[in-house]
Amino acid sequence: MTSGTVPEAERPAAARVRAVYLLTCRPGEDPAERARALAWEQTVELPPGSVPPAIEERAVGRVESLRRAGERRWRAVVSHAVEAWRPDLAQLANLLWGNVSMQGGVLLEELQLPPGAAEAAGGPAFGVSGVREACEVPERALLCGALKPLGASAAELARRAGRLALGGADLVKDDHSLSDQPWARFGDRVRRCADAVAEANERTGRSCLYVPSVTGRRSALADRIGRARDAGCRGVLLNAVPAGLAVLQGLGEEEDVFVLAHPALAGGFFGADHGIAPEVLLGELFRLGGADGVIYPNAGGRFPFDEETCRAINRRLREERPGLRRSFPVPGGGIDVERIPRWVEAYGPDTVFLVGGSLYARPDLTEATRRLVDELERHAGRHGDGGGA
Amino acid sequence: MTSGTVPEAERPAAARVRAVYLLTCRPGEDPAERARALAWEQTVELPPGSVPPAIEERAVGRVESLRRAGERRWRAVVSHAVEAWRPDLAQLANLLWGNVSMQGGVLLEELQLPPGAAEAAGGPAFGVSGVREACEVPERALLCGALKPLGASAAELARRAGRLALGGADLVKDDHSLSDQPWARFGDRVRRCADAVAEANERTGRSCLYVPSVTGRRSALADRIGRARDAGCRGVLLNAVPAGLAVLQGLGEEEDVFVLAHPALAGGFFGADHGIAPEVLLGELFRLGGADGVIYPNAGGRFPFDEETCRAINRRLREERPGLRRSFPVPGGGIDVERIPRWVEAYGPDTVFLVGGSLYARPDLTEATRRLVDELERHAGRHGDGGGA
Repeated sequence: MTSGTVPEAERPAAARVRAVYLLTCRPGEDPAERARALAWEQTVELPPGSVPPAIEERAVGRVESLRRAGERRWRAVVSHAVEAWRPDLAQLANLLWGNVSMQGGVLLEELQLPPGAAEAAGGPAFGVSGVREACEVPERALLCGALKPLGASAAELARRAGRLALGGADLVKDDHSLSDQPWARFGDRVRRCADAVAEANERTGRSCLYVPSVTGRRSALADRIGRARDAGCRGVLLNAVPAGLAVLQGLGEEEDVFVLAHPALAGGFFGADHGIAPEVLLGELFRLGGADGVIYPNAGGRFPFDEETCRAINRRLREERPGLRRSFPVPGGGIDVERIPRWVEAYGPDTVFLVGGSLYARPDLTEATRRLVDELERHAGRHGDGGGA
Repeated sequence: MTSGTVPEAERPAAARVRAVYLLTCRPGEDPAERARALAWEQTVELPPGSVPPAIEERAVGRVESLRRAGERRWRAVVSHAVEAWRPDLAQLANLLWGNVSMQGGVLLEELQLPPGAAEAAGGPAFGVSGVREACEVPERALLCGALKPLGASAAELARRAGRLALGGADLVKDDHSLSDQPWARFGDRVRRCADAVAEANERTGRSCLYVPSVTGRRSALADRIGRARDAGCRGVLLNAVPAGLAVLQGLGEEEDVFVLAHPALAGGFFGADHGIAPEVLLGELFRLGGADGVIYPNAGGRFPFDEETCRAINRRLREERPGLRRSFPVPGGGIDVERIPRWVEAYGPDTVFLVGGSLYARPDLTEATRRLVDELERHAGRHGDGGGA
């Protein structure tokens, strides 16, 4: 610490981002030195002690605490000035884990933003209440059917979208593999699927929404969102990691669509001792960036998230925070008609249940969807805290 | 395989993407089943055998081979139709490792695109020859000085940029932490730094280029690139993972700037048995997306890449391929005046050496830069194959 440092007690604690890291040290490594090197690497990218006091004071991360957390494991709290990234989400991710991603044994476990900083990032343009309003489902948990597979024609996809809508799905989202393939060109697919869902809505009196996957470089992406909106779509699906946090941030507001964020590629960050905890990446950063709903692999499905992780994601997405709308958790996997009551009880009503494989395994897509929606409606009042908030 | 499958010998092999995965199996797990599940998960997201033959034939990944690679380790070659992603880079990454990222023990080791597919992705708009032309350095290796630190004023950064240019740096790039902080606002920083470098060029007769870091959501990013161009900048630095592959792809061509890609956050993908090999992500995907130069942590620096990995990245960036410009490797770390002759010999002339910390450790930034450039000029003719190409 330099002579210019303001004593901890006098600092406005509210003005700093606090990041909790679990550090796994090599044998003989000094954890204090390791934490300090991290704080410097992530900001000035120079060795500790090599910048003028005024710059250290304003820009270098501060190791606020360091506690033993196991054999060769230490938990370090590092704080950063919000000015280092605000309001840029991609730069926040960079500040927290950019360069140290290329080292090892650095797990970002927790992130706390001061009041106002989250608001500056933007957050969801619609949020739970906005999506509910668009779907005309004020209270119960929502059902989202996954539209698949890659390789099907636009006509076949539209037929399936219509069946999902007829069965009472609240949302029908494209598989995230669907982009602009010759088997079903984007424009053709979106127009046909949106029409099929609209026709089903006329018959059911519901307001099912078709949510197309939008992909492509900046110009293509903007064009596709425009075409989706022209086809009457109110929301889009975005592969937030490959597309980029810079693309996610503000997309819903700038384009007037709600955004479902898919976690494709995000698994790269979920290492057990090196990475970003799923609730921080999917629950906090995706929400800050403006995801109105965040898809994640549910416990009990074909991916290895446990229920505790799912509940932590739910909590981060839905907790009340000033100036930041609440987002829908969208768990997918392990959800079928037998198990859905259990998940509604566990996760609560402000949840979108994403169902794909288990619907397509049934002979009649409409009937299979209807049975799931019936279950959601029957269990509308029965639920736990769903992981908080 | 279904009855509709065309025999291997009759398929146009050139039309498929080949991905090599190293699979780490759990005890008792069937590797053939695992490879097959991966190929289905990454495309139709349904269990094997659950789509009509025509869709399987056109869209489902094919396990081309499976070979033992160690205890519980198997190497699987999976091929995909180029139509599943072309020309969308973010979707290529998604197809290769999107959903399986959330499983474990799946390392994408190698990627081979058929002729024409790489070209469709775009690749660098300037490449090695374009950047050389802009810097007016036709043959020798280039020196890039890193402009730091975060927290310095725009005036101070400009002073440092001028010194780096006076010393003969070919490129001066912002630290990737610099965005639009109150300590040095983007517009002020870029104008001052560009002017300082231009003034230095008048004195040296060289053509040093200032490369500002551009960040922000889509609208901010476009605005900043425009302002950088207005200030006379010919290239920009992009944090390609947090910004997104969708932002990287085509950026240089659409904005008429060369692009240096920074690997911030990319370390999430570099797990030893789960991830994407650095040469595939940084060497292949970044080049396909249009990075004219790719920064990576050099062997011998403060990050754990070994020299073999660095050479593999170099090879992927620089190998001659039809319709795809060559990119500059930009190794950073472990490079100072004592060691630079060794790296020039190892990596060859089509390399940009990125130097930061070792310059700032010297009392005179201009003089320290000059000594490095002198070394590069002295060693202009002495080099090995640099990892190929």
